[in-house]
Amino acid sequence: MSTEKHILHYETSAPKDKPAADDPLAFGTIFTDHMFVMDYTDGTGWHDPRIEPYKPFLLDPAAIVLHYGQTVFEGLKAYLNEDKEVVLFRPEENMKRLNRSNDRLCMPMFDEKFVLSALKELISLDKDWIPDREGTSLYVRPFIFATQPYLGVAPSKTYRLMIILSPVGPYYKEGVNPVKIAVESQYVRAAVGGTGSAKTAGNYAGAMKAQEVAEAEGYSQVLWLDAKEHRYIEEVGAMNVFFKINGEIITPSLNGSILEGITRKSVIELLIDWDIPITERKVSIDEIMEANRAGTLEEAFGTGTAAVISPIGELFYDGEKCEINHNEIGELSLKLYETITGIQTGKVEDPYNWVVPVD
Amino acid sequence: MSTEKHILHYETSAPKDKPAADDPLAFGTIFTDHMFVMDYTDGTGWHDPRIEPYKPFLLDPAAIVLHYGQTVFEGLKAYLNEDKEVVLFRPEENMKRLNRSNDRLCMPMFDEKFVLSALKELISLDKDWIPDREGTSLYVRPFIFATQPYLGVAPSKTYRLMIILSPVGPYYKEGVNPVKIAVESQYVRAAVGGTGSAKTAGNYAGAMKAQEVAEAEGYSQVLWLDAKEHRYIEEVGAMNVFFKINGEIITPSLNGSILEGITRKSVIELLIDWDIPITERKVSIDEIMEANRAGTLEEAFGTGTAAVISPIGELFYDGEKCEINHNEIGELSLKLYETITGIQTGKVEDPYNWVVPVD
Ligand SMILES: Cc1ncc(COP(=O)(O)O)c(C=O)c1O
Ligand SMILES: Cc1ncc(COP(=O)(O)O)c(C=O)c1O
Repeated sequence: MSTEKHILHYETSAPKDKPAADDPLAFGTIFTDHMFVMDYTDGTGWHDPRIEPYKPFLLDPAAIVLHYGQTVFEGLKAYLNEDKEVVLFRPEENMKRLNRSNDRLCMPMFDEKFVLSALKELISLDKDWIPDREGTSLYVRPFIFATQPYLGVAPSKTYRLMIILSPVGPYYKEGVNPVKIAVESQYVRAAVGGTGSAKTAGNYAGAMKAQEVAEAEGYSQVLWLDAKEHRYIEEVGAMNVFFKINGEIITPSLNGSILEGITRKSVIELLIDWDIPITERKVSIDEIMEANRAGTLEEAFGTGTAAVISPIGELFYDGEKCEINHNEIGELSLKLYETITGIQTGKVEDPYNWVVPVD
Repeated sequence: MSTEKHILHYETSAPKDKPAADDPLAFGTIFTDHMFVMDYTDGTGWHDPRIEPYKPFLLDPAAIVLHYGQTVFEGLKAYLNEDKEVVLFRPEENMKRLNRSNDRLCMPMFDEKFVLSALKELISLDKDWIPDREGTSLYVRPFIFATQPYLGVAPSKTYRLMIILSPVGPYYKEGVNPVKIAVESQYVRAAVGGTGSAKTAGNYAGAMKAQEVAEAEGYSQVLWLDAKEHRYIEEVGAMNVFFKINGEIITPSLNGSILEGITRKSVIELLIDWDIPITERKVSIDEIMEANRAGTLEEAFGTGTAAVISPIGELFYDGEKCEINHNEIGELSLKLYETITGIQTGKVEDPYNWVVPVD
């Protein structure tokens, strides 16, 4: 894990036009002037960390990533807080998870402190790209992929780590709105023993088909069930999921096939701090449908970096529609949303030291 | 599916040195002078089919393939037959499977006849690269990947299809040798409802970890069990698998999580033609271990484009070593190997029209 600690700067001589103040900033479509790049070579380790102008790069047609999908990524956000300081939310957790994903995919570990400092250096350089309307942020995407030109199925001997930045608009345009979710009964996202707990490309490619079917039927995302019995709840699209039944909060336990979300972790820590009963355990779709029929399913919500908290207004399973909390945001969902986004923007105190300044 | 049918040629002005006649031609490391490229744009369809010099190409850092793994591929071989003609083995089957993989990954279909003709045109142009020692061939790798720069998880609106060629040495250096295979009891390759029956990158990335563990223990590949009960046999690394028990041949049925191998299909067709009983059904690892203990497991072999037939000399499962046919190639395995490679090289008659000339 030798890491050359000095980051060379090759800054752009032709900065791009920034989006207009009222640009809706559609997610993941606009990129800033610079990117961070670092290469890995077997025997040498990670080398040549540098900041360059954002631009297409050369890849060999036989690069392992194109054929055998050795690639991992992370997603986090930088915010301008109330005092116009640039802050991150628990970024060390993203660095840790990226290294865990690396391990599952037989990819080389990196120095988490160093890459976090590089990430901050990049954001500082492009900080004029951070939008400052309510709810906007700078989406940060670190990713690593296999570059060796080799058609044998084996871990690559060379890799590239990149960080790119994208200004994004508010997730909710008009207040926090509940979503309709279809429970997936045919396709499977991940199995225990597979790659589900890693943030790796194949999990997302495989999920697109079910998502396409659900969208065609008017649902915004898919709730995945387990690969074994098609009975236990896993997670939603790019979110973990929580249910409030009879005052108790339940979320599927980390069984090896779901992603360990950082928002999930934060929600659990808040609930414990608030003395609200929270249990991580197996939870079946039947239990949820029954609780709804019995009137004890009080709230359901997804958690993830993009939406923070996404209340679920309707679940569709096996021909049955289950409306939750009259398709309105629940009290607890709202409190969690306001607390976490409040901490992120500096409106609410941060007793947990979750917020990390960039400068 | 509009396809511009005329393939432009941009031939290299600097042909590379070809490998020496005695080069071992390590699999997937040497590439010929040219490649075929075609692009896809939503609304327009596939366009600009062309043959270009083999070289790295520009990819946007936000290209969907790097983040969400939308990519599929195929693998087949071109051979110089006894009469020094260039032939392919059942290439229409690879085209069909590539389109089936596309469908699972929400990627656009292509015109199979047209891409097969492009593949032949490319091979013809680079035919001096085809090695002609016994057992050598030209490996052909068609692949398609998502190129749109977009960080939302959704099917790409643009794709690229490429075909690259690589001269490869004989799979067996000194006669057909049995391999030792470890039965995988922790990791899972694919689940029913997942992407196992598609030839897509994520399946291979996820499989590397188990392969690494098996190799460290002296096994050359992993035999996968099903995701549900961890009991039924799926396939081996990049091969389907067959067992001969008491004179009857058994192979796992196409349950949705294993790849529909073209060698598998050919073996089944040969066995039927030879009046040898062949059954496609669920087969548990316990059944195989028991047959071995009872002395009724006569042969076991993998099938795939790379090795054609790969006899299994030893299975390791749950602490128990199971030696098969005294670690020697079985009579049927040998007959299948000689028939299929014989048909490919023109030494054996081809009553099935499996062999397709390139010119
Ligand atoms: C599959 C999946 N599950 C859950 C999450 C939520 O994780 P986090 O809260 O860290 O954003 C994500 C990503 O953001 C995801 O991609
Ligand atoms: C996972 C997997 N199974 C089986 C096979 C065998 O298929 P085929 O006989 O078409 O080469 C392959 C590839 O070649 C493969 O990648």
